[in-house]
This record gives sequence, C-alpha cells and structure tokens, in this order.
Amino acid sequence: MLVVMQSDATQAQIDAVCDAIREMGFQPAPMPGAQRTAVGLIGNDGQVDGSHISGMAGVGQVIYVSKPYKQVSREWRPENTVVEIAPGVRFGGTEVPVIAGPCSVEGEPQILAVARAVRAAGASALRGGAFKPRSSPYSFQGMGLEGLKLLAKAREETGLAIVTEAMDEEGANLVAEYADCIQLGARNMQNFSLLKVLGRLRKPVLLKRGMSATIQELLLAAEYVLAAGNPHVILCERGVRGFDTATRNLFDLSAIPLVHKLSHLPIVADPSHGVGVREHVPPMARAAIAAGADGLIIEVHPTPDKAVSDGAQTLYTEQFGRLMGEVRTIAEAIGRTITPAPAHQTVGAG
Amino acid sequence: MLVVMQSDATQAQIDAVCDAIREMGFQPAPMPGAQRTAVGLIGNDGQVDGSHISGMAGVGQVIYVSKPYKQVSREWRPENTVVEIAPGVRFGGTEVPVIAGPCSVEGEPQILAVARAVRAAGASALRGGAFKPRSSPYSFQGMGLEGLKLLAKAREETGLAIVTEAMDEEGANLVAEYADCIQLGARNMQNFSLLKVLGRLRKPVLLKRGMSATIQELLLAAEYVLAAGNPHVILCERGVRGFDTATRNLFDLSAIPLVHKLSHLPIVADPSHGVGVREHVPPMARAAIAAGADGLIIEVHPTPDKAVSDGAQTLYTEQFGRLMGEVRTIAEAIGRTITPAPAHQTVGAG
Amino acid sequence: MLVVMQSDATQAQIDAVCDAIREMGFQPAPMPGAQRTAVGLIGNDGQVDGSHISGMAGVGQVIYVSKPYKQVSREWRPENTVVEIAPGVRFGGTEVPVIAGPCSVEGEPQILAVARAVRAAGASALRGGAFKPRSSPYSFQGMGLEGLKLLAKAREETGLAIVTEAMDEEGANLVAEYADCIQLGARNMQNFSLLKVLGRLRKPVLLKRGMSATIQELLLAAEYVLAAGNPHVILCERGVRGFDTATRNLFDLSAIPLVHKLSHLPIVADPSHGVGVREHVPPMARAAIAAGADGLIIEVHPTPDKAVSDGAQTLYTEQFGRLMGEVRTIAEAIGRTITPAPAHQTVGAG
Amino acid sequence: MLVVMQSDATQAQIDAVCDAIREMGFQPAPMPGAQRTAVGLIGNDGQVDGSHISGMAGVGQVIYVSKPYKQVSREWRPENTVVEIAPGVRFGGTEVPVIAGPCSVEGEPQILAVARAVRAAGASALRGGAFKPRSSPYSFQGMGLEGLKLLAKAREETGLAIVTEAMDEEGANLVAEYADCIQLGARNMQNFSLLKVLGRLRKPVLLKRGMSATIQELLLAAEYVLAAGNPHVILCERGVRGFDTATRNLFDLSAIPLVHKLSHLPIVADPSHGVGVREHVPPMARAAIAAGADGLIIEVHPTPDKAVSDGAQTLYTEQFGRLMGEVRTIAEAIGRTITPAPAHQTVGAG
Repeated sequence: MLVVMQSDATQAQIDAVCDAIREMGFQPAPMPGAQRTAVGLIGNDGQVDGSHISGMAGVGQVIYVSKPYKQVSREWRPENTVVEIAPGVRFGGTEVPVIAGPCSVEGEPQILAVARAVRAAGASALRGGAFKPRSSPYSFQGMGLEGLKLLAKAREETGLAIVTEAMDEEGANLVAEYADCIQLGARNMQNFSLLKVLGRLRKPVLLKRGMSATIQELLLAAEYVLAAGNPHVILCERGVRGFDTATRNLFDLSAIPLVHKLSHLPIVADPSHGVGVREHVPPMARAAIAAGADGLIIEVHPTPDKAVSDGAQTLYTEQFGRLMGEVRTIAEAIGRTITPAPAHQTVGAG
Repeated sequence: MLVVMQSDATQAQIDAVCDAIREMGFQPAPMPGAQRTAVGLIGNDGQVDGSHISGMAGVGQVIYVSKPYKQVSREWRPENTVVEIAPGVRFGGTEVPVIAGPCSVEGEPQILAVARAVRAAGASALRGGAFKPRSSPYSFQGMGLEGLKLLAKAREETGLAIVTEAMDEEGANLVAEYADCIQLGARNMQNFSLLKVLGRLRKPVLLKRGMSATIQELLLAAEYVLAAGNPHVILCERGVRGFDTATRNLFDLSAIPLVHKLSHLPIVADPSHGVGVREHVPPMARAAIAAGADGLIIEVHPTPDKAVSDGAQTLYTEQFGRLMGEVRTIAEAIGRTITPAPAHQTVGAG
Repeated sequence: MLVVMQSDATQAQIDAVCDAIREMGFQPAPMPGAQRTAVGLIGNDGQVDGSHISGMAGVGQVIYVSKPYKQVSREWRPENTVVEIAPGVRFGGTEVPVIAGPCSVEGEPQILAVARAVRAAGASALRGGAFKPRSSPYSFQGMGLEGLKLLAKAREETGLAIVTEAMDEEGANLVAEYADCIQLGARNMQNFSLLKVLGRLRKPVLLKRGMSATIQELLLAAEYVLAAGNPHVILCERGVRGFDTATRNLFDLSAIPLVHKLSHLPIVADPSHGVGVREHVPPMARAAIAAGADGLIIEVHPTPDKAVSDGAQTLYTEQFGRLMGEVRTIAEAIGRTITPAPAHQTVGAG
Repeated sequence: MLVVMQSDATQAQIDAVCDAIREMGFQPAPMPGAQRTAVGLIGNDGQVDGSHISGMAGVGQVIYVSKPYKQVSREWRPENTVVEIAPGVRFGGTEVPVIAGPCSVEGEPQILAVARAVRAAGASALRGGAFKPRSSPYSFQGMGLEGLKLLAKAREETGLAIVTEAMDEEGANLVAEYADCIQLGARNMQNFSLLKVLGRLRKPVLLKRGMSATIQELLLAAEYVLAAGNPHVILCERGVRGFDTATRNLFDLSAIPLVHKLSHLPIVADPSHGVGVREHVPPMARAAIAAGADGLIIEVHPTPDKAVSDGAQTLYTEQFGRLMGEVRTIAEAIGRTITPAPAHQTVGAG
C-alpha cells in the first residue's frame, strides 16, 4: 500500500498517517518527492483495508500494490489447476472440453434429443438450466427438481457430464446431488453467502463473471470458494455490460490471457451469452479457442425457434456440428485438442 | 412487440413469423414499408418473450414496445406509493427522511454514539451493517446477530428507525425480526431467490440498484417483491460502474426523475457509495434533494479514520450536521421538508 | 511514479529498472517489501511517460503518483479562475450565468424570438449552433456563416453574450469574429490540432467533456489550450456514454465537485444533452446548481416540436421561465446568485 | 420509424403525431394495441430525424427501424469491398495483410530497422506515427513532415506499403502525398470536418473506432467519407473504453462479425491498443484472425524499452516473428491466407 500525500500536506499530517500505519501493525516508509511525499507500507500481505486512511487529512490517494486475493493467484500456485468434472472431462490442461445444450431443460424428449445431438457432434458435457434466473418474475423460472432428474437421465444415456445452475443454498444441494458441476450465474457472482455454500460442498464450480465485474472481483469471488475449502473452480467469461445494444453483451476475450497470467484457475468462454446473436456465436467461439480458452459453453437446441428462452442466441445442431470442426482445427493450430465425446453409451440409447 | 424483417426477407419468411406470433396467442399485423416489412403483435401485455423470433430466418430485429414490468409501473398505480418504515418515517410523500449511520456496526459504544449524533443532527433513521457483503473473504464480514441486537438497542434509546442489510434467507428472517426496513445490496439486486423471500416477509425493503443495472432491471427486481405480495419497496440509486476511477462509482442522479416517471415507488439516493469520497458527499447529497429524491442514506461515523470499513466516504458528525442544514434549505426551495428526528427518547439516554 | 516489480523479479531486473529511471534523468528509490519490491522515482514532475518501463522484464505495474497536467491544476493556482465572456457574464465567481437557446440557428425570426424569450426569463447568454456536428452526413449541418451573423444580430438587439460551436480551424476563426465564447463539442474534445488553434485565438472557450473522457483527460484537453497561451477556459459536463438507453447519456454531476477540487477552472452543466429528455431537464438543472455548477447551458425553443434538431430535449420557453425561478431559489440556498439578464437593449427591440 | 404513444394518450395527441409525420412527407399508419397505440411511418428511407416527435405530448418513445447509414451498408452493396492500398496489399478479400511497425517514427535508423524486421517476418505494410495525438500537450507530438519522409524512405527500401495518421486537414494533405493509406485515429472518429476532407482526397482511409463509439456510429463516420466520394475505407477495431483498468481498453472482437453482417467494408483489428499489454497481444491477434478480421495492425519495435511511446504494448521483433507463424496457421484453419511480404527490394538494402 502506498499513501500519496497532497502537495500541501503538513509534517503533522504525514506523521499521523505513519502512526495509523503502525496501528495497523505495519511499518511506514516515508518517501519525500519533488512535489509531494508518499508513505509506503512495509510488510503488506495483500489483505490490508486502507479505506480509512484515504480519508485522513492531507491524504491525496491510497494505492494498493499487493493483490487482495491469495489462493487463486499464480504466485500461490505457479502450475495450472486442472479441474476434472467427470472422468476424462478436464479443464485447465491441454485438452479443451466443450459443454453444449439448451438454455433451459424443457422436457424429456427435448433434453434427450439435444444430448444425443451434441454428443454426436463431439461435446463432452451437457448444459441445461433447471433453475433459471430471469429478469422478470413472469418469465419461465425452470423445471426445478424435475429438470435435474431429466439431466441425470441424459447423462445415464449419453455419458455426458452435467453442468447446471444453482441460485440458492437449497438449489445448490440439489444440483450437487444430480450434476457434475454447479454453475453460479453472472447475477450471483457476488452472492457471497452462496459462494460460501459452494465452498463447503466441494463439487466443481463453474463461476461466471458478473455483468460488470473486474477480473480482480471475479478472482476474489473465486477466492471465497477456495477459502471455504473447495479448490475445484472453473472461471467463465460470458460478456460484460457494454454501451452498444447491437450485441447482448460485450464479450471480453482479453479476460482469457489476463486470467491465465494472474491465476492458476482454468477459464472457459460462453460466446452464446457473450454476443447473444446466433450468427456471431461461431466466429466468437473460434476466437475464444485461439485466445487460449480452456473450454467452451454453447447453447444448442434442435429447434431454437421454439426454445422457451434464449432462442436468438442458440445454435441449430447442424451449426454446432460445423463449429466443432472449426474449433478442432484452431485448437490444433495452437497445440491443443478438443476433448473427445464420451465413449460410454448405455444399451439401447442413441 | 414489433418484428422488423430484413430488407431481403421472403414472403415465406414473413408468413412464418406471422405463424409464430399466432402460436404465441397473439394477432400479427404486417406492415410493408419502403425498405422492409415490419410485423406488429396486437394484444401484447408486456410479458411476451420473443427471443426465439429474433433468431428466425429473415428477421432483422425484435423491438419491445410494452414494458415487461407491471405492478411497479406508474400506469398500474398513478399516485405515489408512500412506504412508512416506522411511525412518521415515510418515503414517497412530501417529507424526505434522512437515514444515517456507520458502514458497519462495530460495537455498542460506537453505534450508540453515532445514533445519538445523527438524531441530534436531524436524521430519522439509523443505518449500520450487521451482515456485510465484502469483495474479499478476508475482510470484516460484520457482527451478525450481535450487531442486530445493538441496532435494536440504539432504536430503543433514540427512537430512530433501523435500516440494515440482509444477504440471504436466514439473514432476512433475522433482520425482519430486529429492524424496520431490510436493505438488499447492489450485488444482490438480481438475487431472485432472495427477492422472493423478501416478497413473502412483507417488511419494507430498501432495494439498491445493481452495479450496472438499467432502470428497467431495477424495476423488474422490485416487481419480484411486489409480485410475491409485498408492496413496501423503496428504490435506491447508489452509483453505477463507470470508467473513471477518480470516483468510486458513477452516481446517476437522472435515475430519480426517470423512476418518478415510470413508477409509483419512492426512490432515495446514497451519495456515500455514489461518489465514495467524503468531500464530494455533501454536494451530491444536495443535488439529490434538488433532483427530487424521496430520501437520503448517508454514512456517518464519529471517527471515520478508525472505521473498520468505508472510512474514506464517511462523514464526520459535524459535517453531517452542516449538510442537514443545507438539505433542509434546498428541500424547502422545491416545496418539500426534511422529516424531523424522532421526538421519543428513553429516560436516561443521550 | 512507482514501479511495482513482480514477486519473482530478480535483482538484475530491479537493477535494470533503476538504470532506466536514471536514464530518464531521475533518481530511483528501491523499497523491498514482504511480497515484492517497489521502485519509486524521486523528482517526478508529472510529465514522465513510463510506458516503456511497464513492459520491462520483471515489472508488474507502473503507478503514476503525480498528475500529468500542470497549469489547469488547483496546485498551480489555488484561487478560482473567473472567465468573463462579456461584460458582467462571469463564470467561476459567486454569480452563476445561464446560457440558453436553440440547438441550431434556423433563421432570423426563430433566433430573435428565442433570444427575446430567454432574456425575458433571465438568461445572460444565448446559445445556438451555426456549425453542427451530426452523426449522419445526411442530417442538417447548420447555417454556417449566415447563422453566425444572425447570432450577432440577436446580441445586438438583446445584449446577450453569444456562445456557439466551432468544428475546425476555419470555423474557429469565424466564430472568434462573431461570438463571445467558442464552444468545442464533446466529439472534438481530443481534437488536439483544434485545441492548439483555440489556444492561439485567446477567445474564451467552452470545452465540453468527451463521450467517455475521464476528468483527467478533460483537464489535459484544457491544458492544451492553456499551454498554447489562452487561460480563458470553461469546462462543461454534458453526460457521458452509459449502458442504459433510457437516457441519452449518463449525466455525471459528480464531475462538478471533482473538477472544483482538482482545478481552478469553472465548470458548467448541460442537462439538455446530459439526459436528452425534456421533462428530466429541470430536475437535473436544479441538481447541477445544488452540486455547485458555475453555470448552466440549456436548450430552449419556442416550438420544440418543429425544431430541426434535438427537439426531444428542448424546453418550451414557459418551462424555461419556471426553471429559472427554481434555480434562483436553489442558488440562494447555497449562497450564490444567478447572473441577471443584460440591462442593455437597443431601441425598438423586444 | 415507429412512434409508441403513452398508454393514456388522447386521440387528439395521436392525430397530432400523424399530422407531424405527414408534414415530414411520409404516411402515418396508426396501430391500436391492447395497452397503447403505435404509429408507423410508411416510406422511411433511414434518414428521418424524429427527435422533435419524441418530445410531443402523449408520445412515449420513438423507435428507428431503418438504419441511418446507406452507402456503407451490406444492403447497398452485397459483395465485399476490397481496398487495395498498394499493389498486392488488399483488405477485404481472402488474403489478410498484416501492418506492423513502431508507435512513432523516431529517426532513420529506428524506422529502417523496424521496416526490415517486420518485412522479414512477413508484414506487408509498415505503420509508424509522424503526427501523434497525445493526451498531454507535454508528450512527444511526433516528427511531422520529417517522419513522413523517413516512412517514404523505408517504403523505397523495403517495398512495404505505408499507413500513417493525420490529425487535421494540413496533415491529411501531407500524408496523402507520402503514404499509401491515411489513418484516422480513435479520438478523431467523429471529427466530421476531417472526415469530409478525407472523402475528397480519395486516398485509402483506415478509420479507427472511437473510444466509446457504437458500431452504428463507426459506420456513420465511414458514411461521411463515402458520401464525399471516397469508397476506399478500412474500418479498425482498437478497443473501447471499459471499466476494468487491468487492460488499457476493452477489445471488442464481436465488432468483426457484426461489421461483416451490416457492411461491405473490410475491418482490421489492432490488438496492441486493444489490450495495451505486450504479453496479451499475441493471443488477441490470433483471436482476431479466428473471428474473421481482414487484417491486423500491430506495434513492433526492436527495443520497446527505449520506445518514446507505447512501449508497454509493443512487441519485440522476435515475438512478432513467432506471432506471424501462429496467425498463418489460424488463417489457414478458416480458409484464408496471410498476405505475403513484398518481393521488391532495392539494391543494397536489408
């Protein structure tokens, strides 16, 4: 932490800041400059809250030098964390899994049809919402427990790993029972109570970046899960709020190299929510792989025109098939491979 | 809802859109134009989700004409809703209450000292966090139930109404028991599970605008509470995420006239979080009142330099006293008055 | 400037940074910390460009401590600069002038009618565009020189000072000849060539904040004018780009106290562009005065429904009259007064 | 254009809107709905300015259905425009040129060394600023005419096409004389006077997206150039203003498929300014190619640590060489090729 004094700060004000730093248990290091004095804090462990100092008389600005997160940082753990959500479905290694499926679970025929189709195209995990966070209370809120059971059935038949969202403690317990990875949605990224619950559950977590969360805030949200004892966290870039309504969100692909630099956790990309327009999903999925994403999560539906939610950004299964071919080639161009679809298939399925 | 076709859309594509509208239970009204055809939807009640149509072949854009919210709208209820959180502390009428207090409850001497000081300066309600949503898991997380008991004690002594935050269902039940108004923080504005809980509790709710929430999203979050049976909602502008780090947030005062036009619910302003810098709080508090805010919520602490959180944006009690004088004059200049501090005071207090 | 090294930086890397600082003509001051070393730069005068250092091996981050602007800063000149654009029309003192008029000059009857009306309501300056920056090349581009002559005619009759925009060097020379204050629009805030021209002209400049300019960038744009020899700069907050399309822009009133803290230059507010919706202009104009604005600039038209541009945000003359009454009361509430309309009036006018 | 009336609009108000539409020369088409009436405008050619209607009594909202641009649209010209800035250097076809070079021209040895190095690595054009738009008046402003002459010399020796920025009319004339393509910087994207000048010059233009420009505003800026007679426009995504200071800008790669859908003009990507951090430039350059960019523009310098500007985001020549290999492979993966470096080389050079 560095405390920059105002240019007209008095010696008494500088001394008061030094005292305040000592009260916090650190050593002050004043540095007189041409224009103004700055006071450094020796021994900072990244968890110092200096907001009260920034309001002291004569203080111009408080600058944080250390990062406030710890266990998620690359410095804490230099090698990549690999999160395996089901046998062979690993995020953070050389292989890149693709999660695909509908926005919402709508019924048995729909989810089984999608599961078969995305598996045939090469996906290794199935997405589909049973609990849906919707802006309006009058929109479809998901099938709930019934939806979770249908997802489990789809896994049984296809061998695909299951990723689905939880919105509260009760839902998290249910999802942990039926699925392989609990998704925490963008609107709940800073739902700290729920993050602590997910930390205690020890199930892999797919943590989506909030609407206007900085990368530091995303990493701090992940830190809540790790600090509570669960190291199995996959981060997800899904677009942030932008000013141009021509796309649903502003898909921030630079999050991928940035997270790779700052943290050992894997990061996947969700181009469906990132752009929100079907025809722009394939180029942005390709771009995400080229940028180094550790996975993709993509909305696919056999008849998007009839999907109960997110139809406009959902790929047809044929489109998804073509896209899988493209991302395979691009992954290879940068020395990676797309995780193959599960070999397992129950008798009579498909 | 208006579906704008691409300029090269075929008649078959236009017909398919008309069919899709009929399947949704509405009547299509095609309007051929010079460049392209648009198809209107007759009978729209504002709850239509047309995202699947926007992905149909030949469709350029889907435009929503009706608002997706209902009970919170000015059209649903033309006169102002007045929310009374304690006898005489009414938001939405001519009187304007001021809620003041520390960021966090830190202990009995602190909260009692602040309560006495803000009451003496003219506040009618006390704020103070017992459950604290913090970006970092290593920051002070609040005193919890003990903090709620201290707030109740401060109310008993000073007569101030109590406003404090809840972060989950369990906390909401506790806050409902000890306080007069449950605050829902910016990070939980779209925690839809918690919004439904608050709707069932029927206690007044202070709903803070999310970091990058549009006014429509704020109103939809309030709609969750009203739809679940609780009409006592006070909205709060507290700054949105901006690009200039010179202020903590971008304080969007135009939210005040905009909410007043679209909704019958009261809206208060939180200049402390809005700007995040102590010396800018008084001018922005004055501006909020001039813009028509139905209340203020302001962080005040006897010794901000020693506050455990948010010290930089917290007013000294003397500053708060001067500010109260200024906002009284401005309120009168636009035909309103500041709600007086409670007359009640227990024996031996003060 | 403070150079924060990565936690695994080698001594050789730290030494290289120290050498680079010496090459720039400054003295390095290394500070070893618990996690990492930081290197301070002694003697920084605020004009150091350290971007090449931030790319050096082992460097984590470069933090600028000094401000990059100089002559516009409050430290350079502690007392307020008062810019007088015409006798008695002074920005930056106790009096607060109001500039009013149409978006565009449309013809003699229109501009004379508006001038008389706003003068009658108490404005002290007239706005009106002769050169119009329009997003589309097919929109009305302004009357040009003819418009400037009409503005001069309106000044002759009413005594109002004239504020109008220039878009290039040729236009700036013309505006300097006919008007009292040259407006530089938001889209040209970082048109550095034009800023230098305005610096040489020595005419008062009304410099509008760019669409997404930080306050530091606004002050640096003003620094271009001052550095070229022209100290007569009035800053203007007119809304920045936001994510909510419910208002035209996001009106950032916290810019007012922030500029007052950092700079000695006056700052006025433009609520018409700030919100872009007629009915929200009066509350935001009142808020601007309460926040301490040194002036207002407001679009007024006798028949906004027939205005060639910006009709939706333009006040009727009656509305403007009522607003003037309100802002007078609020100005007095904070110890200021609205500058009176000019007493001067030519024979036969009005 | 669609005018949505308020739900309580009177018949007289609806009639007045219909009259106003007729006065504009169009035919009104009222559509009564369940909640409110909407009035369509038949015959809209995309250039209607309805802002005065949005302020009329009873009007809730004005929605634009047609696009305000014309000549730049895909509907105006369905096939891609290919802009050839020098023999064989074509943007918008199957081949993808790479423009590389330093932020600023600093002297003959520097620019010749960079030119040789980037040509050896496979670039087909050289960038380098002679006129520099700098936030601060005290920063290096470029070598001016001398810099242009050095660029011409580098072209003579290496055969590389030259792309360099102009900041005003005088500079544009000079650049047109010495270079192959005139760059218009982000800060001047809406400098409409300069856009008109570039339209008259007929030289290819590289038009950078403004700091917070929507894609529609970018296309309208290009429309200024086309409308003035110059069809040779290359658009450029270079990052927009974001809220996370961890990257210099927010690099919006979804601009690439979006522009390809709406317009026939080519679009290139500038990852150097897009992220502003050297180590993130290669992944984002790869992502841009995967997303379909028609070219790249990248900052390269033999000794970035000593560059006078933008050092932190500038690649070493070795890094650039490796990156060229990667983008070649990715271009091929999506059926494109990187334009080869010029074969031409003068005697004695290299």
